[in-house]
Amino acid sequence: MRNSPGGGIWGPMNAIVRFIGPNPSTTFNPNSLHPSIDDQVFLSPFTYVVGDVRIHKNVYIGPFVSIRADEGTPFHIGENSNIQDGVILHGIRDEFIEKNNQRFSIYIGEDVTCAHGSIVHGPCLIEDEVFIGFQSTVFNASVGEGVYIASGAVVTNGVRVAPHRFVPPGASIDTQEKADSLSYVPQDKDEFAKQVQRVNQEFPTSYSLLLGKRRCSCGIASG
Amino acid sequence: MRNSPGGGIWGPMNAIVRFIGPNPSTTFNPNSLHPSIDDQVFLSPFTYVVGDVRIHKNVYIGPFVSIRADEGTPFHIGENSNIQDGVILHGIRDEFIEKNNQRFSIYIGEDVTCAHGSIVHGPCLIEDEVFIGFQSTVFNASVGEGVYIASGAVVTNGVRVAPHRFVPPGASIDTQEKADSLSYVPQDKDEFAKQVQRVNQEFPTSYSLLLGKRRCSCGIASG
Amino acid sequence: MRNSPGGGIWGPMNAIVRFIGPNPSTTFNPNSLHPSIDDQVFLSPFTYVVGDVRIHKNVYIGPFVSIRADEGTPFHIGENSNIQDGVILHGIRDEFIEKNNQRFSIYIGEDVTCAHGSIVHGPCLIEDEVFIGFQSTVFNASVGEGVYIASGAVVTNGVRVAPHRFVPPGASIDTQEKADSLSYVPQDKDEFAKQVQRVNQEFPTSYSLLLGKRRCSCGIASG
Repeated sequence: MRNSPGGGIWGPMNAIVRFIGPNPSTTFNPNSLHPSIDDQVFLSPFTYVVGDVRIHKNVYIGPFVSIRADEGTPFHIGENSNIQDGVILHGIRDEFIEKNNQRFSIYIGEDVTCAHGSIVHGPCLIEDEVFIGFQSTVFNASVGEGVYIASGAVVTNGVRVAPHRFVPPGASIDTQEKADSLSYVPQDKDEFAKQVQRVNQEFPTSYSLLLGKRRCSCGIASG
Repeated sequence: MRNSPGGGIWGPMNAIVRFIGPNPSTTFNPNSLHPSIDDQVFLSPFTYVVGDVRIHKNVYIGPFVSIRADEGTPFHIGENSNIQDGVILHGIRDEFIEKNNQRFSIYIGEDVTCAHGSIVHGPCLIEDEVFIGFQSTVFNASVGEGVYIASGAVVTNGVRVAPHRFVPPGASIDTQEKADSLSYVPQDKDEFAKQVQRVNQEFPTSYSLLLGKRRCSCGIASG
Repeated sequence: MRNSPGGGIWGPMNAIVRFIGPNPSTTFNPNSLHPSIDDQVFLSPFTYVVGDVRIHKNVYIGPFVSIRADEGTPFHIGENSNIQDGVILHGIRDEFIEKNNQRFSIYIGEDVTCAHGSIVHGPCLIEDEVFIGFQSTVFNASVGEGVYIASGAVVTNGVRVAPHRFVPPGASIDTQEKADSLSYVPQDKDEFAKQVQRVNQEFPTSYSLLLGKRRCSCGIASG
């Protein structure tokens, strides 16, 4: 069985397909704009990126990720961040956060991790080195540098989470009081987040080397 | 970097691929039936629709949506509803709800929103204008007109939720008593749900205009 | 409308695309290894399998499933198990469980169900006949034979769950004390899990018959 793709399995096994396109023109968003993606980004097979999305150097995007700037817009994803399997980025129309004197629906800084199955929904500001855990949701919130949001938590209702705070597993942070009472990230979680960064920052180059050589698509090697 | 698809990124960037097919014939479901999809439906790239699924006019289906009527069947999705990124519709065999003197595994009415990452699992009746929030689950339930289910909630165990009730974030509504004690949808949530409807009802036409012009698939423009 | 794929819908409707490939070579994982997949496995359209993943006989893999052994590795998925829509399997580097005197990042036994939207994150040992419910997470845990994990639960922090225990909906089992205090699986849940097994064990053959005949890919019938 080893190293065999399964003799009984038909159809192509190495489809490298993504959809990267402009947002549609709507009454609330008439300009149709394309994503801009740095050359050193890795987009996995089965990624979907629409509209004015700016993805910077050495970002890793996992499979089944939807980055859909067709309502709230624009989105920024900073250097060395990773957006893991099944993550969804989307935003509400006409609502913004501000960063560097510009308006964004979603601004994600550098060295941020969005772990498997999490949702970041604009308006949202995610500062550098934030860790967003499995299946958690951040919607209408401002999250300070180095914050660690554990699995299944929800951060919402316009709260501002101060830098380096820890949102416990399954917590619902929906008032400023709850946000203000959060304690600091424990050292083991902080180390875990840094380890996840180290691993994921290797992926853009290593996956590009692996798949770029093949340059296949839809099962057909083309070079 | 603007408006460039990333010079270092290889392979097609505009793959419009979906899988729309019949259910397989099984002991519990011997008839293999195709979906029927109105001409004015928009199916995003990376959608999967299997079996006797009836999708009506002006429905928007997001990327990475699985509508899989291979066990519980049939499914109905009414006019102007939206099924957002990563939503899963599936049903248990041999269990049904009734609507208009017909049996369904899943019946979703008109103007319904299934938000990012939610699961609707039959047997399930979702009446008109229901809002199903991020990552929530409805499984074996009957949900009245205009109900608002907030993020991460679970509605299950055969409960019937009366019209216009509000299911709070993360709530588990698994007894009829809990369902009966729910209060009404707050006005701001009701307005939010209506706004989401307005936005999503523009997508079938606007996306079809955007992508229909191109008629590309797997990176190859064909017309 | 019946049996029509939607006259207004352009582009291919029957794309059977998957990505099955080796992991990239990294500092923490220099060997690039291919998945090995039994001939009697069914991989749905839109599945992503990377690295040293060993998938045994009669396993059903649903759409939008990511099985990504590019960090923690290897993964084992035993006979007759099913990995439903949107499930994510991934593992932490350098952390293992042991089974049959071998080390694995993830070992999933026989007759296991990973239901819609669940996450299994290594290091993880999932023994035979375990049921993992909708949107639940198992991360760094050892789960005994016949355990039933209900929807939205989290099992983590190195706990060992004894055979045939029931993890309630939404529960967070993050200490060994909590794991030890779990009661046994109620009879109706046990029957439900067995019914889900019976249904899903029909899918590999029935889907292969349905789609294998067609052998189409990217909308082009090839035989």
